[in-house]
Amino acid sequence: SVNADRLLGRLRELGSIGRDETGRLVRLAASDTDKLGRDRLVDWLKGAGLEIAIDRIGNVFGIWAPQGIDAATSPLMLGSHIDTVINAGMFDGCYGVLAGLEVIETLKANDFDPARPIVVGAFTNEEGVRYAPDMMGSLVYSGGLDIDAALATIGTDGSVLGEELERIGYAGPHEPGFLQPHAYLELHIEQGPVLEREGVPTGAVENLQGISWQKVTIKGDANHAGTTPVSMRRDAGLAAARVITFLRERAIASNTPTVATVGCIEFEPNAINVIPSKATFTVDLRDPDEERLLAEEAALTAYLDRIAAEEQVTISTERLARFQPVTFDSGIVAEIEAAAAGRGLRSRRMTSGAGHDAQMIARIAPVAMIFVPSIGGISHNPKEFTPDADLIAGANILLDVVRKLTTS
Amino acid sequence: SVNADRLLGRLRELGSIGRDETGRLVRLAASDTDKLGRDRLVDWLKGAGLEIAIDRIGNVFGIWAPQGIDAATSPLMLGSHIDTVINAGMFDGCYGVLAGLEVIETLKANDFDPARPIVVGAFTNEEGVRYAPDMMGSLVYSGGLDIDAALATIGTDGSVLGEELERIGYAGPHEPGFLQPHAYLELHIEQGPVLEREGVPTGAVENLQGISWQKVTIKGDANHAGTTPVSMRRDAGLAAARVITFLRERAIASNTPTVATVGCIEFEPNAINVIPSKATFTVDLRDPDEERLLAEEAALTAYLDRIAAEEQVTISTERLARFQPVTFDSGIVAEIEAAAAGRGLRSRRMTSGAGHDAQMIARIAPVAMIFVPSIGGISHNPKEFTPDADLIAGANILLDVVRKLTTS
Ligand SMILES: NC(=O)NCCC(=O)O
Ligand SMILES: NC(=O)NCCC(=O)O
Repeated sequence: SVNADRLLGRLRELGSIGRDETGRLVRLAASDTDKLGRDRLVDWLKGAGLEIAIDRIGNVFGIWAPQGIDAATSPLMLGSHIDTVINAGMFDGCYGVLAGLEVIETLKANDFDPARPIVVGAFTNEEGVRYAPDMMGSLVYSGGLDIDAALATIGTDGSVLGEELERIGYAGPHEPGFLQPHAYLELHIEQGPVLEREGVPTGAVENLQGISWQKVTIKGDANHAGTTPVSMRRDAGLAAARVITFLRERAIASNTPTVATVGCIEFEPNAINVIPSKATFTVDLRDPDEERLLAEEAALTAYLDRIAAEEQVTISTERLARFQPVTFDSGIVAEIEAAAAGRGLRSRRMTSGAGHDAQMIARIAPVAMIFVPSIGGISHNPKEFTPDADLIAGANILLDVVRKLTTS
Repeated sequence: SVNADRLLGRLRELGSIGRDETGRLVRLAASDTDKLGRDRLVDWLKGAGLEIAIDRIGNVFGIWAPQGIDAATSPLMLGSHIDTVINAGMFDGCYGVLAGLEVIETLKANDFDPARPIVVGAFTNEEGVRYAPDMMGSLVYSGGLDIDAALATIGTDGSVLGEELERIGYAGPHEPGFLQPHAYLELHIEQGPVLEREGVPTGAVENLQGISWQKVTIKGDANHAGTTPVSMRRDAGLAAARVITFLRERAIASNTPTVATVGCIEFEPNAINVIPSKATFTVDLRDPDEERLLAEEAALTAYLDRIAAEEQVTISTERLARFQPVTFDSGIVAEIEAAAAGRGLRSRRMTSGAGHDAQMIARIAPVAMIFVPSIGGISHNPKEFTPDADLIAGANILLDVVRKLTTS
């Protein structure tokens, strides 16, 4: 079994890195605080005797290639990410990376002799908060996005990802995809309410829902808040509010797992007595069913047309991310169930509501994920929490599956 | 008659002061650009031979006290403001100040012998965009707000008004209210559509609607956009959007002149895949009828209670401004009508939709306003425009009313 204290200690230490003045955890991709987290991770990877390799999109790998294995043997890859959202919890992503490292150290300490190299990776910009799309490092790694296009991405703060990676010293020499994984495993907190509600400690994740991200820009006309009759207003802010309420009403009425979120908004000129001339906001639409996700996107487009006419505004949209639902490898999912049973733990097959690097790596290798419960289903929030026992159980299941997949 | 070229030239020059890199006119109260505008105004006032007096809230006065008038004689006061909104037009406020100066210079040049001093004032922070409430300089001047409380006001950018006035050199020595006006006249662009639509060049403004400004803060819970079922969301952004659409639907349904505007909004953490934990926005409610304005405020409060329950969020409000409707002095209004008729111009009595310094000075003196048309009813927008002929006609009516009110 894994060394619980070492894993939990590292998780807490990484969770203390990148706190702002008010104590919020903010390690946005390729920022100064992301660099601090990466530096600490690289120390740990080196300390475990792993070879460090960084690729051009900044993905960090720790490679264990035991003596006597043919250099061409494709590795088993473990991983996740260590970038965070704004005011994040300390488990999302970090848990999977540190548990991957912990599994390798445990296997080494027990003189395990794997049939293939084992690699643990931390992928760049999984959260997508600073640069869209999310899961960018693993997407580029699996060939789904051109490396140069990715490096040219402009962030929400106007920064350029490639320049930021250079600046923090994580624009590495390797071509993304330089290691072709034999298979990929990702351990993650659920970030949703299902496991806790059902009292099941292990999720064997068999699929992941589709994600559609768009940025909507509405242009109206600035005018005086006191003198402009309602009938003469071209109010970009009101138009935005109508879209937000529409999305929620539709999600409620649909009676499906469809979710829609408007997380970012900005008005211009943003003055108390000026009708907004411009409103910009993001739409995050998700559905496990591609047909339904397409229908939701179409419904949004139709509603934007209607609002443009009714509110006399002009509306444009920009695509920030679009990923179809993904089905994971049934063989590995079965291994996860077997490993949980072997440890005397209940498990359930489930769908991931969040996007994950596994979803991208699924383009180039067999993939599956292990989930552990999130108390109250809370994530992307400092209250994100998973009990120690569940964290350790998840790491041990990962250990067992890794052992199984690397025993010849 | 006034010197048209001088007035129009100054209006354009002042409109060129305080443009940002992108050409937007932004002279927010007590900012660096406001200082540039104030400095230019003071040059012009001095050039016209006026005595300069600045009070503690930064109101700037140019005083013409002809020889032989008892020092205790209360002056006729003209004025408006030269601070602007973000991305403003060049007429709002500046027109009234520069026309007041123009009238004084014209009278002086024609050796007019007024029965009382004539003063032109530029009041601090009329727009209220950086510091609430609006009309702050004239409100303090007329005793409606304590000077020390006003100087302690925190701006939208976190600045303190008193410190900013010191910094730009406009924290003057005089106590606000040091000159008790005999009467106050304000010439302004209408900023609304009425005069242009009716083809009437002159508005004799007889009242001004009530203004209610509040800042609403909604707190929900940050959570993951992909994993959180709709039923578990405490979405502060969605709650804000519902309030915005409610206000518009109510204004439409009311069939009254009630207007409601949400000009500012902010989400936290403002990340694409995080349900907003906090939404902050402003509500600007106006109505010429105090009973109706009270009813609108009560309806908003009731709706906020309903939203708090339905969306499981907590809501607090902060009062930023509250002014009751004001009725102007009927005698001066009649003088304005007579002056227009004397120049062969049609006029109409009307209500002001915008707030004005006249509304505050009405607390301490008889007051009225003259409006000139705004093309397309556009204001608080760089497209704000009034034709030269209307600007000059308005200034000449002001001249005639001033002559009338200072002839013994
Ligand atoms: N796991 C996770 O929070 N990923 C971020 C991408 C997303 O929004 O789903
Ligand atoms: N005249 C004018 O635009 N005043 C600003 C205060 C208001 O919002 O009415």
